[in-house]
Amino acid sequence: MARPDPALLDPARYPFANAVTTRFADLDPNGHINNVAMAAVFEDARLRFIAAVGLPRNTDNARFMVANVTIDYLAQAYYPQGLECHVGVLPGGRSSWNLRQLLVQEGRPVATALVTIVFTDGERPKPIDPALRERLDAWLIR
Amino acid sequence: MARPDPALLDPARYPFANAVTTRFADLDPNGHINNVAMAAVFEDARLRFIAAVGLPRNTDNARFMVANVTIDYLAQAYYPQGLECHVGVLPGGRSSWNLRQLLVQEGRPVATALVTIVFTDGERPKPIDPALRERLDAWLIR
Amino acid sequence: MARPDPALLDPARYPFANAVTTRFADLDPNGHINNVAMAAVFEDARLRFIAAVGLPRNTDNARFMVANVTIDYLAQAYYPQGLECHVGVLPGGRSSWNLRQLLVQEGRPVATALVTIVFTDGERPKPIDPALRERLDAWLIR
Amino acid sequence: MARPDPALLDPARYPFANAVTTRFADLDPNGHINNVAMAAVFEDARLRFIAAVGLPRNTDNARFMVANVTIDYLAQAYYPQGLECHVGVLPGGRSSWNLRQLLVQEGRPVATALVTIVFTDGERPKPIDPALRERLDAWLIR
Repeated sequence: MARPDPALLDPARYPFANAVTTRFADLDPNGHINNVAMAAVFEDARLRFIAAVGLPRNTDNARFMVANVTIDYLAQAYYPQGLECHVGVLPGGRSSWNLRQLLVQEGRPVATALVTIVFTDGERPKPIDPALRERLDAWLIR
Repeated sequence: MARPDPALLDPARYPFANAVTTRFADLDPNGHINNVAMAAVFEDARLRFIAAVGLPRNTDNARFMVANVTIDYLAQAYYPQGLECHVGVLPGGRSSWNLRQLLVQEGRPVATALVTIVFTDGERPKPIDPALRERLDAWLIR
Repeated sequence: MARPDPALLDPARYPFANAVTTRFADLDPNGHINNVAMAAVFEDARLRFIAAVGLPRNTDNARFMVANVTIDYLAQAYYPQGLECHVGVLPGGRSSWNLRQLLVQEGRPVATALVTIVFTDGERPKPIDPALRERLDAWLIR
Repeated sequence: MARPDPALLDPARYPFANAVTTRFADLDPNGHINNVAMAAVFEDARLRFIAAVGLPRNTDNARFMVANVTIDYLAQAYYPQGLECHVGVLPGGRSSWNLRQLLVQEGRPVATALVTIVFTDGERPKPIDPALRERLDAWLIR
């Protein structure tokens, strides 16, 4: 299995957390939480994080777009136990920012995600406003 | 919209409850929790209920099969609020039993489900064992 | 298992059909297509049917709302084979109409659905316009 | 948006393709195919590819595990149009192999995925058998 930086596996480093309940429909034929269901849990935590940060809503000429999602699957996750998804921001670029996410079940890291979100004018990348960057930087991974 | 028996809409009548978190992926283009996502939440509560009752696991010649699911959609459900699913048994037949489920969001009933589960020998209906029936009857809707 | 009217199981009676591909994520721990995934396939065929009929889009004071979905699960469905969903209208009421759907895999009926859709002014049922009723009646089950 | 190597965007380079139908439930509140639904389509094509290659089934001490999935989202995908997922193998390591996937809608690339699959003894990486490696190498990206 993938061997991510151990520092990424410490929930205490992440400023935001979201608890989710698993569902029977998340199970795959092996009786484990399906990889795609984990992707849905990462996505959900991301959206709740964005609401917590208070990012402005997408408009036609100022849109955040998820450009890349990289998930390391570290261990099996089970049903019916819940999952906890931790989220934090990485120091970012001019027109994009990166989120790091950690998915934990009963204290065990089961997956991590690195997500690149690009700020665009609808088509092309657009510099992130300093006020917005400051707001994001309040949620940096420690 | 459907107008179910008001007595069905009282959570206090159901002996079992399960809280679930909604997910961004549950949303449809209207910005509401999708009908199919509600069906997944009903299914999940059903499985957790079956675990709570302590029903025996399916074997090749003694299987529970969901034969019918009837859902009344009563009101829109929203994200990111959670849902609560209530479950109870209805007095049943010889080789089948019925569950009644109520889905609630922030105190508002949003859907009800009636589910018929048939006990089979893998192919044909099979009488439910008295001990099993007794165990089910401990979870009757009040 | 449920024993629906055999006449419902004849695809030739339905005026509309939609072929769908199954997905690995549709599978449940028993290795069958999950009941909720079948509900998603029924929903999808319903939406494609509505587009084929040319129903007007929902507005704030003229909305179609799915009030009830009743699914009979008849047999297991498998992966990776596809599914075919047949749809037809039943002679309807004043402010609602019913769809009957049949889900088939490799010639075998695996589930049927009866769906009640209510026409509303956003809150209460509203009579269906005769021109719209006529359009629906062109798609009656034979 | 991400700018992947243009050579990756040419379907003709991929030895395997799978057509899938989109579903209404794949849509997100923006009316686009949800990112997680795209992940499910990638997963599905992966499993069909593995069946085409004829990989042995997982056993307790010889298991393939998806260790990493990296998805670049390039453009919006729509409903009700279908999607086509192209798959090919990259020259691989000792105990792992990489798949490259390309998702296309009506000739437009909408996403690419890079997937690392590790061969394990259930716990630790295990060298891939030369016969198996040869079988994989028959499906290299051109």
